[in-house]
Amino acid sequence: MFGLIGKMRAHPGNRDALLEILSKGTASMPGCLSYVIARDPEDPNGIWITEVWDSEDSHKGSLTLPAVQAAIAEARPLIAGFDSSVRTEPVYRIGN
Amino acid sequence: MFGLIGKMRAHPGNRDALLEILSKGTASMPGCLSYVIARDPEDPNGIWITEVWDSEDSHKGSLTLPAVQAAIAEARPLIAGFDSSVRTEPVYRIGN
Repeated sequence: MFGLIGKMRAHPGNRDALLEILSKGTASMPGCLSYVIARDPEDPNGIWITEVWDSEDSHKGSLTLPAVQAAIAEARPLIAGFDSSVRTEPVYRIGN
Repeated sequence: MFGLIGKMRAHPGNRDALLEILSKGTASMPGCLSYVIARDPEDPNGIWITEVWDSEDSHKGSLTLPAVQAAIAEARPLIAGFDSSVRTEPVYRIGN
């Protein structure tokens, strides 16, 4: 499995709109085992995204999906920056 | 929902054993929506755990489960330290 853990910052006042856009574009992505979008309660502009894919190729493939590309384009003006991005190798996962 | 993103370090040479212990204790925890244990490919001792719970109370409750307490006790000698721990508010989640 292939995982990603990343934190981005919305421009002030834009986090909720950005959360909305990000969740729209990620509804059905082949090979995506888990995709979680979360607020950072300590940072009013912070958003965490944690992902698990069956393979890195599936993740790369998702970036070509029209819905994902549309979401990225719509989200870009609202994003102030990316604070961290970590690649992981999930070895165990439970999730319903 | 309530989320946690944390990184721990195993004592050198103990990561695989620690991964095994951590996955054993977390098989069935009421209110746990997602629990992912992953290697950090850049850090030979690094382990990432990302969690989503239906509530913070469910997470607290899990710490009283015998299987979780046994896993914590078994894991503790293999843990060198905790690098980071972030609380999150998941707002969107997909996972099969």
